Amino acid sequence: MLKPFSNKVAGLAPSAIREILKFTADPEVISFAAGNPAPEAFPVETIRRLSDEIFAAEPINALQYSVTEGYAPLRAWLENDLRYKGMFADNDMVIVTAGAQQAIETTAKILCNEGDVIFCEDPSFIGSLNAFRSYGVRLVGLPTDKDGILTDKFEEALTAEPTAKFLYTIPNFQNPTGNTTTLARRQEILKLAEKYGVYILEDNPYGDLRFAGEPVASYKSLDTKGVVLYAGTFSKTLAPGLRVGYLCGEKEFVGKAVVGLQTSTVHTNIWAQMLTYKFVTTVDFKEHLKRLQEIYRGKYTRMANALKANMPDCITYSEPQGGLFIWATIPDEYDMNAFCTEAVHRKVALVPGNAFLSDENAVSHSFRMNFSTPTDEQIDKGVEILGAFAREFFK
Amino acid sequence: MLKPFSNKVAGLAPSAIREILKFTADPEVISFAAGNPAPEAFPVETIRRLSDEIFAAEPINALQYSVTEGYAPLRAWLENDLRYKGMFADNDMVIVTAGAQQAIETTAKILCNEGDVIFCEDPSFIGSLNAFRSYGVRLVGLPTDKDGILTDKFEEALTAEPTAKFLYTIPNFQNPTGNTTTLARRQEILKLAEKYGVYILEDNPYGDLRFAGEPVASYKSLDTKGVVLYAGTFSKTLAPGLRVGYLCGEKEFVGKAVVGLQTSTVHTNIWAQMLTYKFVTTVDFKEHLKRLQEIYRGKYTRMANALKANMPDCITYSEPQGGLFIWATIPDEYDMNAFCTEAVHRKVALVPGNAFLSDENAVSHSFRMNFSTPTDEQIDKGVEILGAFAREFFK
Repeated sequence: MLKPFSNKVAGLAPSAIREILKFTADPEVISFAAGNPAPEAFPVETIRRLSDEIFAAEPINALQYSVTEGYAPLRAWLENDLRYKGMFADNDMVIVTAGAQQAIETTAKILCNEGDVIFCEDPSFIGSLNAFRSYGVRLVGLPTDKDGILTDKFEEALTAEPTAKFLYTIPNFQNPTGNTTTLARRQEILKLAEKYGVYILEDNPYGDLRFAGEPVASYKSLDTKGVVLYAGTFSKTLAPGLRVGYLCGEKEFVGKAVVGLQTSTVHTNIWAQMLTYKFVTTVDFKEHLKRLQEIYRGKYTRMANALKANMPDCITYSEPQGGLFIWATIPDEYDMNAFCTEAVHRKVALVPGNAFLSDENAVSHSFRMNFSTPTDEQIDKGVEILGAFAREFFK
Repeated sequence: MLKPFSNKVAGLAPSAIREILKFTADPEVISFAAGNPAPEAFPVETIRRLSDEIFAAEPINALQYSVTEGYAPLRAWLENDLRYKGMFADNDMVIVTAGAQQAIETTAKILCNEGDVIFCEDPSFIGSLNAFRSYGVRLVGLPTDKDGILTDKFEEALTAEPTAKFLYTIPNFQNPTGNTTTLARRQEILKLAEKYGVYILEDNPYGDLRFAGEPVASYKSLDTKGVVLYAGTFSKTLAPGLRVGYLCGEKEFVGKAVVGLQTSTVHTNIWAQMLTYKFVTTVDFKEHLKRLQEIYRGKYTRMANALKANMPDCITYSEPQGGLFIWATIPDEYDMNAFCTEAVHRKVALVPGNAFLSDENAVSHSFRMNFSTPTDEQIDKGVEILGAFAREFFK
């Protein structure tokens, strides 16, 4: 009976990470494959109290239909906060979305016809790449080094791809590499985007989780021409289960996104928006972020030290100054997929690097390691297992 | 700087109802234009208690990332409940969505290429029609009478439109007409869908709000061939702000929908799913529904009586046995839009019928009245104002 699926989704496969995560249902498996924030970072008691206050004071507002744009006090707080950071222009508008993922998916829907090009870092976040694929776009991956996208390659791609609508980038502690784009690269990339008339969709889920080094100005704060669309989220700074993110950019674009969201989820869960608003306005949010940064600094340092102590020298690692991920690269002559497959048999889950490529069938010699979700003990034990096995594998 | 919007959303306008609702920001305006459940129907104290229990017992589960398919205990409850009602076949799967709206929007994304046809009742729910429009489909509206879609017209349309993917229908207390499709019509329509190989997307937000007459078997329960996709929601039976709905149908289709949802919202707010599960399993849900039915019976009866007492005889009304809406039709020789515009100047908001047509520019002589949101006093006063003005208008 089944009708064929639409062309745009026919080839869409579940995220490769999900397939890996199936192995992690085995309680004996130590997972470095997830991308979850550290559970000890959730301010559970505060959330419980704030939630109760909401139902005591404004239960109907927390339960009734609400407006698509988002909870007005939260939007006003976001506007102020973004303006303070130089990220809200006079012609801008900010709306609340069901996580940054919805902001990203909606941007593709609003801008792209099937066959249009979206530029992305190669590698990049698979959730976003799949969102783009679900609209039948053509992903053009841009090569990167530890400082970000190679700007000459970006200009070549801009010249070659006149149907390109935007560049998708995660400039801070990128997923999966952990790298941060330097200020100089950001300025060059922004200039190129302006010159060729493409948007930059700046995805910044990890920016507030900086545990080393100095902050770099966001694309949004550098933008004077309305080129940058900014996706933010409370998934890593408060809790991802809430599904509260936001999209900020030119009014005309964001206004159209509102019409799109009206047809997809009507509005983001309103209790979660009220809770987020209460959280950022009644607790010391900066202190809260400091506490998170300490947690992540500790976990990263532990994993980096364990890798140094246990793994053979032929493997190299990115050196993130924040976020959740380390990107490990093995020598070219070895088979990365064989390494990851054997690792999971030994009860340590990694994500093979090709999952993050614009062309998933391309060869990768890297894998992603997450340090935020495992406990300290799991980090120690998992890297120990991995090290013992790697010393056999890389001989 | 702005790039053009994608073809599929370029012409997409905000819901006409939203434009009307702007007038209702004026506190003097009595709104019969909304579609909100009655606020007194929200079980506020129970929700407050259950929410607190969740944060006391399983805070991390309520805050961490969760699976796209939905909260497993809620899915299991839904499967049982649907199976008990004859609405879950062995090859079926049920998933949780951010309201039925997301189930409906995702169905269009999964099945339709731009230019494909979706059949709908004419008139039908504008939120769904706009979701379909946002994928560049062509809406083919089917004429209806008080018993549902005219089956001969459906067969004509099926013959004429080979690219049609599905029929979208609200069989119970339809939005906007309030009409319920008879069993005979459902059987005929299902047979035609089978014969021509199109899905039926059955949207049933109001089914549990029956306050008169006898329930009619759902399309899903009549289906033996896997033709029916069923969208349900807790928006009207618990609270719409939670954004918890669901989609049930053939595994192969629903599995693809999961891949789609993974790229759009990742998963539905998990606290809301846990709360819904706790609600349906720890309170007497049937008693709760009975209480809602009494509230809606009271409000409908009050509005129907007020219309009879105040309005000129030349206006006719649908006679819903449940749901939230009455559909009023004025004589052909009068201008419905002029009537609605004048009504809002006199501080009573109605929704002009053409907002619900597959072709919004077509002429309509009907308007929609909502009886669930206004208070009893507002129903009395609003209809009184409307009656005084209508007696002048229809002379």
